[in-house]
Amino acid sequence: MYRIIEILTSDENQSRIKEFFKKFNVKLGDSVIIETNNAKHMGVLIPRYEYADVSHLVLKLKNGYNIGINLEKINSIKKTPVESDPTKSDTHNSLTESEIIRDSPDSQLPNLSLLSTGGTISSKIDYRTGGVMPALTAKELNDSIPELKKLANINPEVVLSEYSENIRPEHWALIARKIADNVLSGKYDGIVLSHGTDTMHYTSAALSFALQALPIPVVLVGAQRSSDRPSSDASTNLIGACTFATRSKFSGVFVAMHHTISDDVIACHIGTRVRKNHTSRRDAFHSIDISPFSLIKKDQIEICEQYTDLKFHERNKNLENLVVRSKFNDKVMLLKFYPGFDCKVIDYCVEKGNKAIIFEGTGLGHINKECFHQIKNAVKKGILVFMTSQCIWGKTSLTVYDTGRDLLEIGVIPLFNTTSETALVKAMWCLGNFEDKDVISMMTSNIANEFTNRIIVD
Amino acid sequence: MYRIIEILTSDENQSRIKEFFKKFNVKLGDSVIIETNNAKHMGVLIPRYEYADVSHLVLKLKNGYNIGINLEKINSIKKTPVESDPTKSDTHNSLTESEIIRDSPDSQLPNLSLLSTGGTISSKIDYRTGGVMPALTAKELNDSIPELKKLANINPEVVLSEYSENIRPEHWALIARKIADNVLSGKYDGIVLSHGTDTMHYTSAALSFALQALPIPVVLVGAQRSSDRPSSDASTNLIGACTFATRSKFSGVFVAMHHTISDDVIACHIGTRVRKNHTSRRDAFHSIDISPFSLIKKDQIEICEQYTDLKFHERNKNLENLVVRSKFNDKVMLLKFYPGFDCKVIDYCVEKGNKAIIFEGTGLGHINKECFHQIKNAVKKGILVFMTSQCIWGKTSLTVYDTGRDLLEIGVIPLFNTTSETALVKAMWCLGNFEDKDVISMMTSNIANEFTNRIIVD
Repeated sequence: MYRIIEILTSDENQSRIKEFFKKFNVKLGDSVIIETNNAKHMGVLIPRYEYADVSHLVLKLKNGYNIGINLEKINSIKKTPVESDPTKSDTHNSLTESEIIRDSPDSQLPNLSLLSTGGTISSKIDYRTGGVMPALTAKELNDSIPELKKLANINPEVVLSEYSENIRPEHWALIARKIADNVLSGKYDGIVLSHGTDTMHYTSAALSFALQALPIPVVLVGAQRSSDRPSSDASTNLIGACTFATRSKFSGVFVAMHHTISDDVIACHIGTRVRKNHTSRRDAFHSIDISPFSLIKKDQIEICEQYTDLKFHERNKNLENLVVRSKFNDKVMLLKFYPGFDCKVIDYCVEKGNKAIIFEGTGLGHINKECFHQIKNAVKKGILVFMTSQCIWGKTSLTVYDTGRDLLEIGVIPLFNTTSETALVKAMWCLGNFEDKDVISMMTSNIANEFTNRIIVD
Repeated sequence: MYRIIEILTSDENQSRIKEFFKKFNVKLGDSVIIETNNAKHMGVLIPRYEYADVSHLVLKLKNGYNIGINLEKINSIKKTPVESDPTKSDTHNSLTESEIIRDSPDSQLPNLSLLSTGGTISSKIDYRTGGVMPALTAKELNDSIPELKKLANINPEVVLSEYSENIRPEHWALIARKIADNVLSGKYDGIVLSHGTDTMHYTSAALSFALQALPIPVVLVGAQRSSDRPSSDASTNLIGACTFATRSKFSGVFVAMHHTISDDVIACHIGTRVRKNHTSRRDAFHSIDISPFSLIKKDQIEICEQYTDLKFHERNKNLENLVVRSKFNDKVMLLKFYPGFDCKVIDYCVEKGNKAIIFEGTGLGHINKECFHQIKNAVKKGILVFMTSQCIWGKTSLTVYDTGRDLLEIGVIPLFNTTSETALVKAMWCLGNFEDKDVISMMTSNIANEFTNRIIVD
């Protein structure tokens, strides 16, 4: 299904492609036809920042794929000046100039708050260094995607400007409070938060716990390619997120990203059950142990069948029901277990005053028996020790094997099928907002769909 | 596609199902027809150890699925004594009694070494506690699956008896040396190693580095359900592993497990590119960023197309080419980064005399800028700091964003698309067998297919 390029690690001269382009009198951005011995490809020449090799050029095809073509196999490159721009998405109707110029709010359209925090979706390529820099504000983002103005009256605001690897629990609190303010203003039908994809699933989990009984949807959205790149997924993701935020009949915290690598369908995931499972693909985000909550196809919002008998809040006007608990206590450590794991790291956690440990055990939630002594000691000192699985999918179960039963006996608490990332965020939230004595019962209760109460039988 | 059961967390009386069975005069193992208001199900009543709820019974259908049925919805259960046993796999031809009794070697059959290390595949349910216990030896395992005797003359031996969460780097060394001995004896056409599934992918990576230029295949195999359970995958996995080990024309280290949840196809994965991605499903093991090397269907071995132009050793008789390097240095730490990560853990790694850190960064391989100071210090002290991604799929790339370029500058070394688990094992192996000065160049070279040299373009 996917086209393949070879990855080389040689340090050939970086200027090879430039010379090649010169030879055929073409440049980046040109629509071209490339002939090799076996095939003919039509598309737009684009930069190849993600790829380390220099022996390939990258062509964006009309169907949205990028392909790499080995320079040595190319016989000719010809410009096709009449070719229409294949980088324009045809998922959404194109708009005439008169339609997109609209400055005053349209009373027929819903009102949307667009909050930006940084990340690729609001980044530009720095053509000097070849890297990506955070650059766009929510306003610039809004302005750069004219289709948005047809969907809603959008109020863009900047909350932060950080790559998401730099987002910390205190940022979650800041974002939650800003969203709460905008919800309580009563002005908006939905809120969209643009966010770096690296830790977007941690932030979506944090907001799912911090903001409960939301009257309107809050949709996090990101991009795997910066918005000035031809292969960018920024505009389709943002259009999908804005569509869901303003039109969904359900409220709650969601993440909207590509459902497949094509631009046709945007998936909307539950904030506590989503994970970034690929470093670079546009469909990197997956719902874990459950289907995406909703698929957004052109102008249509489909809700997945398996959710129809689960309880989700419908969109409503009851602002007074909103519960905001935005504190996070970062004295929680997430530890992935592995063969050769240094058990004394558990002692380190205790010494540093942590209040909880989230283990990513193996399989159903297991840890080497050599660590039992340290875990016992941690539990004795009042540290809460929770178990998740590094498998990603499936649930922990500590009753199947001796090891699990031993771990239960020494006080380890399994977290069913909460992902380790969501478990970490939830523990920080519980410890930030409630008394210590209540944390165990909260961690093992379903607060924001962090447990799926139906699982796939295998 | 999958049938669904509900998971409850109530602590209803555990004896409810027993009473229920009594009422309808049935017991575990009976073939029955169950009628609910909406449906009629035919199958065998089986134990439900994996499931915490007590309000459901579990029925194994003829198609191999297990389904949970809510006791309250059941109108009647009737025994069907004429029903043939649906727990018998029909993937492989059934054998007559005369065929399976064979004590002396058959000179027409290949010779196989079957080594056991423990784990579910060699476990039995303890009917007193309801848990699973390691119990079977390789001999018992061999004897319990009569089809194996038709495939090969099998020499079963016990190497260890441990659940795989207890396997440590020194066990990898022990296993590697035992395999080397058996290879060098020249007696065998293939080697199968039964192993607990929890850390089987760590061990398969360890053996891939420790045993190079193997003349015959070494196939690790496990089971997600113990071999005396009707839903066990032990026999089909073992038959698949033995088929590949004795008949494949390729040598190397592989992992054989269910390809889907049905019993029809066993997938054979490259030892360095496989991961356990589900806590309980039979098809829990996936090849990462590449298709399984081979699919074993009944008596047929299919090699996946994308490997046909890659270099794999063919099976051969050159015992003298075997390279055994079986030392592992466990002074390596694997750290998963997350928002709120305690940067001082990096100082802890340094203080404890570790020689390398494998980071599981976010996205393309990122870490909060607040940790840069500690990483710099670690690098200054001579610690090797490598980067992988917690996304699981896709490759690290530190040249796309500022953060990545900063990490490169302070000396962090990206490991392309090596999984974090394989990267950990490889670092332990490099540090165990080579001089420190050679480790960086080895870690960034492809030794045992830990880098895929073709990746999917997105």
